Amino acid sequence: MTERIRRFLRQRREDGPCVVVDLDKVHDNYLTFERALPDTRVYYAVKANPAPEILALLERLGSSFDCASVPEIEMVLATGAAPERISYGNTIKKERDIARAHALGVRLFAVDCEAEVDKIARAAPGARVFCRILCDGAGADWPLSRKFGCAPEMAPGVLEHAHRNGLEAYGVSFHVGSQQADVEAWDQALAVSARIFREMAERGISLSMVNLGGGFPARYLKEVPGVPRYGEAILRALAEHFGNRIPQTIIEPGRGMVGDAGVIEAEVVLISKKSDAEDEIRWVYLDIGKFNGLAETMDEAIRYPIRTDKDHDRMSPCVLAGPTCDSVDVLYEKTPYELPVSLSIGDKVLIEACGAYTTTYSSVAFNGFDPLRSYVI
Amino acid sequence: MTERIRRFLRQRREDGPCVVVDLDKVHDNYLTFERALPDTRVYYAVKANPAPEILALLERLGSSFDCASVPEIEMVLATGAAPERISYGNTIKKERDIARAHALGVRLFAVDCEAEVDKIARAAPGARVFCRILCDGAGADWPLSRKFGCAPEMAPGVLEHAHRNGLEAYGVSFHVGSQQADVEAWDQALAVSARIFREMAERGISLSMVNLGGGFPARYLKEVPGVPRYGEAILRALAEHFGNRIPQTIIEPGRGMVGDAGVIEAEVVLISKKSDAEDEIRWVYLDIGKFNGLAETMDEAIRYPIRTDKDHDRMSPCVLAGPTCDSVDVLYEKTPYELPVSLSIGDKVLIEACGAYTTTYSSVAFNGFDPLRSYVI
Repeated sequence: MTERIRRFLRQRREDGPCVVVDLDKVHDNYLTFERALPDTRVYYAVKANPAPEILALLERLGSSFDCASVPEIEMVLATGAAPERISYGNTIKKERDIARAHALGVRLFAVDCEAEVDKIARAAPGARVFCRILCDGAGADWPLSRKFGCAPEMAPGVLEHAHRNGLEAYGVSFHVGSQQADVEAWDQALAVSARIFREMAERGISLSMVNLGGGFPARYLKEVPGVPRYGEAILRALAEHFGNRIPQTIIEPGRGMVGDAGVIEAEVVLISKKSDAEDEIRWVYLDIGKFNGLAETMDEAIRYPIRTDKDHDRMSPCVLAGPTCDSVDVLYEKTPYELPVSLSIGDKVLIEACGAYTTTYSSVAFNGFDPLRSYVI
Repeated sequence: MTERIRRFLRQRREDGPCVVVDLDKVHDNYLTFERALPDTRVYYAVKANPAPEILALLERLGSSFDCASVPEIEMVLATGAAPERISYGNTIKKERDIARAHALGVRLFAVDCEAEVDKIARAAPGARVFCRILCDGAGADWPLSRKFGCAPEMAPGVLEHAHRNGLEAYGVSFHVGSQQADVEAWDQALAVSARIFREMAERGISLSMVNLGGGFPARYLKEVPGVPRYGEAILRALAEHFGNRIPQTIIEPGRGMVGDAGVIEAEVVLISKKSDAEDEIRWVYLDIGKFNGLAETMDEAIRYPIRTDKDHDRMSPCVLAGPTCDSVDVLYEKTPYELPVSLSIGDKVLIEACGAYTTTYSSVAFNGFDPLRSYVI
């Protein structure tokens, strides 16, 4: 929560839930990443929050951009950023989208199999490709599925296939898992990456780059290490596995860049109990839920800090739910949330660290409710 | 799949995934509900698919409407339907939204606690309210959470509170769970409802209506009973528990009304394997996934029938995933999906029974991908 957001919310006139993102905080976060990994290029993961004001700020600061689709590429180009600052980081692309990205000047593409290499060789001849490898994601709040990447043993074949088809076999990428709390998580993936670099060298192909991915956490209720500690651990691992031949590196922070820069303001719509039993828990219903901003409460993975004006009061547990007629629209039930006993219908609540993966996960209009309104200040 | 949809898709020129809904099928489904429960009013659950053409058709057929929000109420009124045909069925409403609905002429509201009754008494004086009770949802593919409804023992107090505050204590509602495959599921809830009717009569308050909710299934891959069998079982249970004093009844089909009326056309973007191992499973990536239409594959609860032009070929299992850079965007992995071995990148696939809960669950633009395009023919 920042003073600028507090002031903005005091003066806001419109009705309904909203998220407010403070650009000063995004600015600070960018500089923190730059300082922690001074030789690493930052590619902001646009999908975390593609608000034009955020993209424009990061453009001015010199950031590069990791894009998942042609529309994201177009949003970045609209800031005036040169296409050389864009990575088309989705391993799943239609050939006609690759061709459109190539026509827009994009030259860096992610792959994880030969079929994707073939598309790029046809639609973006001569481009640079990096091969994403599978990584186990231990220590992450959200270990990733096996959706992206190939077994490390397969990567040299994919990269050599790119080389033989006129592409530049540029490097390797991995992702250690979202909201990664273990600063050492990069170590093993870098060991594997270094082996791929050596095997490619033996095949006469010199790789240039390791894409360290994202996974840098935002601070929700649980304490997480600061970015400098991630920087130190990554630099140590790079030195250990690559010795004095350290490759170019890039990182793709999304949540780590904007997560803690945003606050959602919501309203208590209803407080009720399901029975008259003494020990029956309160249900607190907000005007925001899984379908208009808080999708990441899925499986209660992320526990957002929630503030009210009554936090000095006695607290008691409640089940927290959203406003839709959908029974999965429950935020915290397995582990109830402590809120003031004096909380009332109509009270405002502030949900912190909501700058990432809130606006874009919103549904178009489920139950007739508007998508989350966003202000970037 | 209908011949009209097939013809439409053959002539379609635009690119990208879409859903096509056949109004003839919705028409048939409406008549089937009417025939199965001739004395029951149908309140279409607008949230399942609020396409204006569907609402207009159902208005002409004489349907009533179950709405979750003021925007849904406004969509229904835009068809020319009188507000008497609308139920504001969400138990979680802001007082100012109740006032807006009341100003628009809506007179029937759901409640499940005294606090909600108080709001309605203030904002919609004299309105009819029905109290939703908790129901265990056994036999449903998606048993509902405890989000909506109160313990049955609490309902008489809530209804009496309404009566004492100038509202009409109108009846009871329940929901037996989504995609309910057990035609007998209504029996126990009707037994409980009849007990509440008797208790209210002892308190001198005569209830009029039982809202039987939704839960009527669409046919996905698994066989389900037809609507007539639900009708018979419900009529039997009504007679058993209410004797010769059968109340007014309403049903709220959503999925059962439009689910099997829609087909999604999507495209294979990539087919790959994660390693070179002989028995490694194929990953098939479509241009549609959890964030642009297929949210209901969550936990693999709904298994959609998928057709291709190559279904005469040998089949083999694959993991099916969506196009976004999000590792949760995987459709079927725990139980892989059988697709033709000859399936290729660029092939079209048809996903059946996608008329409900696809367009509105779509995210606004996650990863820059458009929400699901919809055609109603």
